[in-house]
Amino acid sequence: MSSIYRWALLAALVLHATALATQAVADPLPSWNDGPTKQTILEFVAEVTSPDNANYVPPAERIAVFDNDGTLWAEQPLYFQVAFALDRVKALAPEHSEWENTQPFKAVLEGDLETALSGGEDQLADLIMATHTGMTANEFSAIAVDWLSNAKHPTTGRFYTDMVYQPMLELLAYFRANDFKTYITSGGGIAFLRVFAENVYGIPPEQVIGSSTKTRYEYRDGNPVLIRLPETNFYSNKEGKPIAINQHIGRRPIAAFGNSDGDLQMLQWTCAEDGARFCAYVHHTDADREWAYDHDSPIGKLEKGLEQAQSDGWTVVDMKNDWNVIFPAKEDQN
Amino acid sequence: MSSIYRWALLAALVLHATALATQAVADPLPSWNDGPTKQTILEFVAEVTSPDNANYVPPAERIAVFDNDGTLWAEQPLYFQVAFALDRVKALAPEHSEWENTQPFKAVLEGDLETALSGGEDQLADLIMATHTGMTANEFSAIAVDWLSNAKHPTTGRFYTDMVYQPMLELLAYFRANDFKTYITSGGGIAFLRVFAENVYGIPPEQVIGSSTKTRYEYRDGNPVLIRLPETNFYSNKEGKPIAINQHIGRRPIAAFGNSDGDLQMLQWTCAEDGARFCAYVHHTDADREWAYDHDSPIGKLEKGLEQAQSDGWTVVDMKNDWNVIFPAKEDQN
Repeated sequence: MSSIYRWALLAALVLHATALATQAVADPLPSWNDGPTKQTILEFVAEVTSPDNANYVPPAERIAVFDNDGTLWAEQPLYFQVAFALDRVKALAPEHSEWENTQPFKAVLEGDLETALSGGEDQLADLIMATHTGMTANEFSAIAVDWLSNAKHPTTGRFYTDMVYQPMLELLAYFRANDFKTYITSGGGIAFLRVFAENVYGIPPEQVIGSSTKTRYEYRDGNPVLIRLPETNFYSNKEGKPIAINQHIGRRPIAAFGNSDGDLQMLQWTCAEDGARFCAYVHHTDADREWAYDHDSPIGKLEKGLEQAQSDGWTVVDMKNDWNVIFPAKEDQN
Repeated sequence: MSSIYRWALLAALVLHATALATQAVADPLPSWNDGPTKQTILEFVAEVTSPDNANYVPPAERIAVFDNDGTLWAEQPLYFQVAFALDRVKALAPEHSEWENTQPFKAVLEGDLETALSGGEDQLADLIMATHTGMTANEFSAIAVDWLSNAKHPTTGRFYTDMVYQPMLELLAYFRANDFKTYITSGGGIAFLRVFAENVYGIPPEQVIGSSTKTRYEYRDGNPVLIRLPETNFYSNKEGKPIAINQHIGRRPIAAFGNSDGDLQMLQWTCAEDGARFCAYVHHTDADREWAYDHDSPIGKLEKGLEQAQSDGWTVVDMKNDWNVIFPAKEDQN
């Protein structure tokens, strides 16, 4: 090695080391209050990324999965995708005169939400299918983008994509900075999620897992399209989450975040293996800044999950005490 | 900027530029003969990766999909996964005395391959289900790994994983070096493919798409398992390929490689969009070094695909004339 080359290399290494040291001083999770929860996260990441640690995990195996509703963004007073379906019913009503006499559509059009949502999962599925299918995949994406660009949350007046949790945005970025692949594993619709996940969370479409309808391929005059059909392909909730994770990713995550009993099996699946594993529940404890609910909430019910978190030593994030900010400042948002 | 820092930076840049220049001289596709096919590939990659080109594609959207059987590895005299199923029937026969009197199992056990495979897709599905389900996902992977480590191809005597195409290995690496994400989109089983795709092709499990059985989640004494069920979840062939690509990836590939009419819809889906798109058929034309077959082959039938390749200007790779090597030298293999 020539001495000039050696000198340049040395200078570059010193500069690089200085940059790293500066970086290490900056807090990667500024919206998380100092305390045991934040400390546990930092220690887990340090453990799996340190080559000398017994629990070191190679980058390719650093998979972290995140539920969406109630974990990455809010879910009250009703799942945002249901709000989308309700708005679509109103928009499509002129083409469906039969809805004036058919529940749950009639109630939606009359603004009687309680009746509209009283029919349980079957009637909810009717609302979803009637508003989410019958068009091409591209057409559906355009409809969802348009809605997200215009609709506002009924109590905060924010865009729905401004109701993501700032601490979780920081956590996603922190994991990725440590060579994790971050995935969404939602019970919500995969096609709905994909229209905003990349811009809002930095999660590309191929790392979004969710529920889906069947589709049909048609070759229309040389122009292939996928038609969304009113038939469930997969429901990615409860037992469906580990099944979908295995189908999409094909290896077990080493970190999982959820907020309801619908995420329990995903956390079980993630944390049953040996080695450093991180499972956490986001617990909605902040009635002032967000909502406070768990075992008796129809949306985001969390009861069995809290029990297993206790018995298995999973982390429970206390939104009120662990987070110094809930939503991003509006000017930071896309 | 201090002058020492500036000097070090300059030196580093010069060294980096020199390294790049050396790299550019090396042929990324040495097993491909010079000629129009190779030239078309190189020009496509140059086009989509040059920021000044009208057809530039950002790295996140550089998705390339590859069929497996007959495209990345050989598929004669029968799909390798079928050879696996036949060997498993023999291994499992002592536990299934009923197979002595049930087709197609009886014929397999008597070594009468013609009868065994004469029953069409239904009987083939029986063989696959009987040998690929009833165990946990982890147990299945271990069985497949064991078979691939021991079984040899009937005519070449090679391990099956030594019957991958060297020119395609180079192509996969070349795409990845240009920030493409490479995916397998096979009609074969996703769980079977995933046990070797990472080692053999450099394709991680989350970038493998294939056919699948349904699975059931069970929480056995705190140990969660996925049980493989004898029921088709998805058949990823023909129309199923674009549907599976949309489900897994959620955006359209810009390059697709296949070898049979089962890949036609995937190529249509990929190349119907505007901008630089690359669709190619690997045409089996080399009876001496591999096999020569197309429109009248029961395995890898290629007829409609060749017609559309002609009419739409897709690339047809002539194995005999475009490839100077078919299989890797054995000592290069995993």
